[in-house]
Amino acid sequence: MEPIKYLLSEDRMPTSWYNIAADLPTPPPAVLHPATHQPVGPADLAPLFPMALIMQEVSTERAIEIPDEVRSIYQQWRPTPLYRARRLERALDTPAKIYYKYEGVSPAGSHKPNTAVPQAYYNKQEGVKRIVTETGAGQWGSSLAFAGALFGLEILVYMVKVSYNQKPYRRALMETYGARVVASPSTETASGRAILAANPDSTGSLGIAISEAVEVAVQREDTKYALGSVLNHVLLHQTVVGQEALAQLEMAGDYPDILVGCTGGGSNFAGLTFPFIGAKLRGERDVRVVAVEPAACPSLTKGKYTYDFGDTAGMTPLVKMHTLGHTFVPSGFHAGGLRYHGMAPMVSHLVELGQIEATNVQQLETFAAGLTFARAEGILPAPEANHAVAGAINEALRCKEEGVSRTILFNLCGHGYLDMQAYTDYMAGKLKDFEYSSEEVAMALAGLPSVG
Amino acid sequence: MEPIKYLLSEDRMPTSWYNIAADLPTPPPAVLHPATHQPVGPADLAPLFPMALIMQEVSTERAIEIPDEVRSIYQQWRPTPLYRARRLERALDTPAKIYYKYEGVSPAGSHKPNTAVPQAYYNKQEGVKRIVTETGAGQWGSSLAFAGALFGLEILVYMVKVSYNQKPYRRALMETYGARVVASPSTETASGRAILAANPDSTGSLGIAISEAVEVAVQREDTKYALGSVLNHVLLHQTVVGQEALAQLEMAGDYPDILVGCTGGGSNFAGLTFPFIGAKLRGERDVRVVAVEPAACPSLTKGKYTYDFGDTAGMTPLVKMHTLGHTFVPSGFHAGGLRYHGMAPMVSHLVELGQIEATNVQQLETFAAGLTFARAEGILPAPEANHAVAGAINEALRCKEEGVSRTILFNLCGHGYLDMQAYTDYMAGKLKDFEYSSEEVAMALAGLPSVG
Repeated sequence: MEPIKYLLSEDRMPTSWYNIAADLPTPPPAVLHPATHQPVGPADLAPLFPMALIMQEVSTERAIEIPDEVRSIYQQWRPTPLYRARRLERALDTPAKIYYKYEGVSPAGSHKPNTAVPQAYYNKQEGVKRIVTETGAGQWGSSLAFAGALFGLEILVYMVKVSYNQKPYRRALMETYGARVVASPSTETASGRAILAANPDSTGSLGIAISEAVEVAVQREDTKYALGSVLNHVLLHQTVVGQEALAQLEMAGDYPDILVGCTGGGSNFAGLTFPFIGAKLRGERDVRVVAVEPAACPSLTKGKYTYDFGDTAGMTPLVKMHTLGHTFVPSGFHAGGLRYHGMAPMVSHLVELGQIEATNVQQLETFAAGLTFARAEGILPAPEANHAVAGAINEALRCKEEGVSRTILFNLCGHGYLDMQAYTDYMAGKLKDFEYSSEEVAMALAGLPSVG
Repeated sequence: MEPIKYLLSEDRMPTSWYNIAADLPTPPPAVLHPATHQPVGPADLAPLFPMALIMQEVSTERAIEIPDEVRSIYQQWRPTPLYRARRLERALDTPAKIYYKYEGVSPAGSHKPNTAVPQAYYNKQEGVKRIVTETGAGQWGSSLAFAGALFGLEILVYMVKVSYNQKPYRRALMETYGARVVASPSTETASGRAILAANPDSTGSLGIAISEAVEVAVQREDTKYALGSVLNHVLLHQTVVGQEALAQLEMAGDYPDILVGCTGGGSNFAGLTFPFIGAKLRGERDVRVVAVEPAACPSLTKGKYTYDFGDTAGMTPLVKMHTLGHTFVPSGFHAGGLRYHGMAPMVSHLVELGQIEATNVQQLETFAAGLTFARAEGILPAPEANHAVAGAINEALRCKEEGVSRTILFNLCGHGYLDMQAYTDYMAGKLKDFEYSSEEVAMALAGLPSVG
């Protein structure tokens, strides 16, 4: 029996998160206050986050211990399986070896609970009663709703309106876990009302939803804000993925030549790749790292590396990242989790350091890849994950063309069983590609803040 | 860290299926030819099934070897996890220990691939090109579609119309795997047309869909029929569930006092319980076994133990089972997989032998149980599985009342991420209970065939 699955026993679940800041040759640029443009300190972030998470945000310690209570919840779905995609390899007739780490086995169906659970835990520890957040496709929102249910926290989610309408079942899942879900832009906040005044038909964006959530969070002492990607502490929590993958590939007697992940805010990508990039930065092992983003929201491949706001209303600190401009509203393509104007500053920094390369793919190509994958491997990927599938298939086909075998590892960050409308539309020929021209890029970038 | 998950390594995945026929004190009554009412032989079933499955259907060998190719596919999701529901125990404040076996980790999201894969395998081995089947909620249809994709078999699914309309995403999943799906009753078959002539608004039933599938299957040499439950060989394939659970409970140092499963056709229930009932029949260990069925389709609790057809048109052999009458069309409640007029003859036989007790629950109670479970354990159960959840919660609450700790094990046979409409309707107060009166039972039973 050829092995196709590599499982770690619970006692090999990581005991700490890996912090790539410890291995960087140069630190990433400072985070700046939105008004003063001066570097922010922990106190500036205290209205938004519990202090434990702020300390993780700025830490340069290599290993940060995972609390026992978090690990005891992690063990419900972790360690997640690493698969060798032998049936996909045969379907592609490629000499490449394809592995994937499958994060869809979590209760919310994606990698997001890896950070939702510790975020809820630290908030609970510091006496917070309510967490406000935004969600795109709903994977983050449902993960925080799940974590909130476990810790008895009230969860309020601003959900990007296009997803709220496209994905009613993601909303229903959040409500099943007991969360309240509001379509964004909403009339509940000043930033939502301002957007609606300018454009009553706004379909929303992650940037707008973040503005609404931040606005609500800062109003009450017992309420904090939570973000599902982008920030250092979020990426940090996801590194359990890559740490496990390292151990599992060791079981398989293999090491990747190429790592592939999809990038929206950057967290699933960082989770898989940072432990490998760390080994590369320390000079231990080499690896090519490929970020795959949607052609309709190409922050890494067409954006500018500059200071920008994390949200549309300009309420968050300024961070240096690859951005399409904080006023950019991406088209309504189906991979809602990748519909963010910017990129995690740490991922951007590593792109600038030459550690990561970026590419983009069109929507139709990603769904075609998803169908090929589902028919070979059985698992139906989320539309976001289809970007990684497409990237991995392209690398495998290149191996075939070149007649070489390489080892490819990608992150299958979530399942698509809550995204059947997208597949239904794709099979009915209703989906299209979205071009994103240089003129549009230039226009969106014109709204960037001028810093320093 | 309190353990909540018990995982077996792949090398402990069962190598054979357990056949309870070997341990019965008396064999079940013979299967009869629909026309002659004489016992059927293997040749009578050959137009419907490959010979390997027919031989399993009538076998009395205790252990039937699982082919390597089937095991190598099984290993993608098997062994499945066994969980200790500690958070649910705390939420219920019960002294009971609750364990559940989780079959939702399979690619199709339920226990059904356990039999879909070997059925597709044996059909492929015997040169079959096309398999026709029926599906209720779509869990069986999507599992056979998945298995068909792996073995390059054409799959045609007659899907009960009420589910076809209620669950478009299950249909989309089957189509994603490459199957063709037809709403039943359809105009494609004589039996479908006859039903529609009598009742153009018929919402269908599993019995009708089986008639259509059987009718199509017998017309072509290269085409066979497949059933997702009820038959001995189907129940046999599911026994990997209970065999693994036995080994996992041994890891936990425990043994169940009570087993709980939901019953429609009986396959997930049999899969979990038969290996335990076998130990009981052999005098090794005692256990109470509880079958939970929907109040709206109460074959075990209100049906009659008698010979009846498996399908509505009377094309299948006659089997002795608990039945509501083969013309019974259950109401459109959401647990479509439990909407069958009869029961697996082997399960019925064991009820008659006093090995299994049966109970029924109402729809609203099952969804309330599902919500309680999801908020405690994170996993959202399928509506069918909610019947088992409700049954287990009731047993746990009885332990609390009586102040005793018992060990309860139930089968969480599938996830509900494709059933969000049902949860949405439940949370909006749109679902109702279905009463099923003694008069209705008597009427449905009046149509039973007279045998012997």
